[in-house]
Amino acid sequence: MSTQMAREIAEQPEAVRRTLAALEPRREAIAALMEGRRRVLFAARGSSDNAAIYGRYLLETHAGVPGGLVSPSVATHYGSRLDLSDSIVVCVSQSGATEEVVATQTWARTCGAATIAVANVAGSPLVADADLALVTEAGPEVAVPATKTYLTQLVAMAMIGTALAPEPTALDAELDRVADEVELLLTVPVDVTVEALRDAAYAVVSGRGLMMGTALETALKLEETCLRPVRGYSYADLRHGPISVVTEGMAAVLVAAPNGPLLAPMVELAGDLATRGATVIGIGGNAAFAGACAVHVPGPDLPEELAPLGAIVPAQLIVEGLAVALGLDPDSPRGLAKVTSTDPHS
Amino acid sequence: MSTQMAREIAEQPEAVRRTLAALEPRREAIAALMEGRRRVLFAARGSSDNAAIYGRYLLETHAGVPGGLVSPSVATHYGSRLDLSDSIVVCVSQSGATEEVVATQTWARTCGAATIAVANVAGSPLVADADLALVTEAGPEVAVPATKTYLTQLVAMAMIGTALAPEPTALDAELDRVADEVELLLTVPVDVTVEALRDAAYAVVSGRGLMMGTALETALKLEETCLRPVRGYSYADLRHGPISVVTEGMAAVLVAAPNGPLLAPMVELAGDLATRGATVIGIGGNAAFAGACAVHVPGPDLPEELAPLGAIVPAQLIVEGLAVALGLDPDSPRGLAKVTSTDPHS
Repeated sequence: MSTQMAREIAEQPEAVRRTLAALEPRREAIAALMEGRRRVLFAARGSSDNAAIYGRYLLETHAGVPGGLVSPSVATHYGSRLDLSDSIVVCVSQSGATEEVVATQTWARTCGAATIAVANVAGSPLVADADLALVTEAGPEVAVPATKTYLTQLVAMAMIGTALAPEPTALDAELDRVADEVELLLTVPVDVTVEALRDAAYAVVSGRGLMMGTALETALKLEETCLRPVRGYSYADLRHGPISVVTEGMAAVLVAAPNGPLLAPMVELAGDLATRGATVIGIGGNAAFAGACAVHVPGPDLPEELAPLGAIVPAQLIVEGLAVALGLDPDSPRGLAKVTSTDPHS
Repeated sequence: MSTQMAREIAEQPEAVRRTLAALEPRREAIAALMEGRRRVLFAARGSSDNAAIYGRYLLETHAGVPGGLVSPSVATHYGSRLDLSDSIVVCVSQSGATEEVVATQTWARTCGAATIAVANVAGSPLVADADLALVTEAGPEVAVPATKTYLTQLVAMAMIGTALAPEPTALDAELDRVADEVELLLTVPVDVTVEALRDAAYAVVSGRGLMMGTALETALKLEETCLRPVRGYSYADLRHGPISVVTEGMAAVLVAAPNGPLLAPMVELAGDLATRGATVIGIGGNAAFAGACAVHVPGPDLPEELAPLGAIVPAQLIVEGLAVALGLDPDSPRGLAKVTSTDPHS
């Protein structure tokens, strides 16, 4: 008997195809909104924030557009008046109804920004109020852990990142391969990985650059769904100090793209963590990366710029499998609601 | 027999006074560098990054200047060409020699940014290459955990944040009270707090807005120095999902300013975490906040904008005390070097 989460993971190839079909025609509108502006800032929480982190890296590395992340409390609690007339602010929320994100979008407009909403609900406040709405076509998501809504948010990020590149590139056509890669990845075996994580006292997750958001999303899902204390680090932040807590009995989950300038450092990190006694679990990368890991699950055959759209799939399968192995209900983790509220009583 | 870390914590009032005296005359130069520019971006790692996070909030909430954080890999590994001619990039590194940060400063200049270096070593590469250098006067720091160098970085951030405000404000004079507040806080008792943390299976640390960097720095120090798996969350990110892992036997360390728009939400968070069974340890805040915590350590009597410069002191005392209680050497934690290198072999 499969869980709702497992069914929604399996729906992702179709969700990606529908979202691409819906958003492809918005490329020109995205580019037009950028005219006379220099920056793209993102505002989101939770999984949507992890999607935004990918969006920001893609913009800076592929489109050459400076990006950034808005601190929502600056909008909602401090009410700062900033001049954002040089910026697009992209607000990301699955429901389109997260109050804090809706309030941040309203604030961004009063600061002079153009606004793009990325949401999965067409009639939501976020969509209704934006200058441009990119509505993802994930369909209703019933399980609490975001899977297909997160992946379709990544599709929206990829659309923004490619639409704002100075010229069309080969990447635009590569987007059409994503759904097939996702389909292939639905069948990768994760049993050995689930066992390794079940037996670990503590886990860290790491990735870097374009894969940073994937690492943070994997950590967040392990924490929320499997109720495990898990920490997501950028490669660099882990190296900078907290690597000292990595020791025997810990698991380190590393996510890597199959190519790009950060693959070699990730292979090296896998070796260093193994030397410290951690069980290194690799997702993606290449053969050298797989060889440096104790346990390895394949990732997508996609360029680094799009690899996050595939690499999250094995991570989702691992999270779902671990929750079931721990006797938990992945569809409805303790203490979580589907539409989140940062300030429940305000 | 006191540790080197304890001695360096105790040196902070003088370190703050020396740094203020050295940086106060640079206000005009900071403001002059901003002419014709609209944004201030920060680049740093580890504790310096936590100082930068405070700098960014102070700029946005006090000076009305949009801030942001540079992703160093965009500079060092992707080599993206971004137009940063509208920005100052502030690079923060205790040693002024962290290769990744030095490389990011060089990159920022090629992208058209004006550069400010914040470092504790006058002859360092970061200082030598910057358009404007703010050299902190912490003196040599021998213990590996950054204490007085972190606090003097906060002084530099406060100098930038107040120098870029459109008009001088009362906050400028309040800076002169910081060293005395730090001195008072050196004597707060932390034994009960240390015991509570020693007995906890896992800890989370949270803060928000101007206190966010303090929360992250407290978490990083507990992790690096006490080798504890600890997670620092923004209030909002904790609320958004990971609060579900908070349960009996865990400790939650909350840092709050004595005033400001986030104090009431922090009081409420303390109550919610206690309801979930966590031992809530509060630093700072007001009487209502103390009342909502199981264990409480006072913070500074400073306006919210400067509270991080005092609130870190009890956190440092707790970290040092916990390390000693655990039989660890706080001066030289396992696996850490003083000058960090993100990419050791590149």
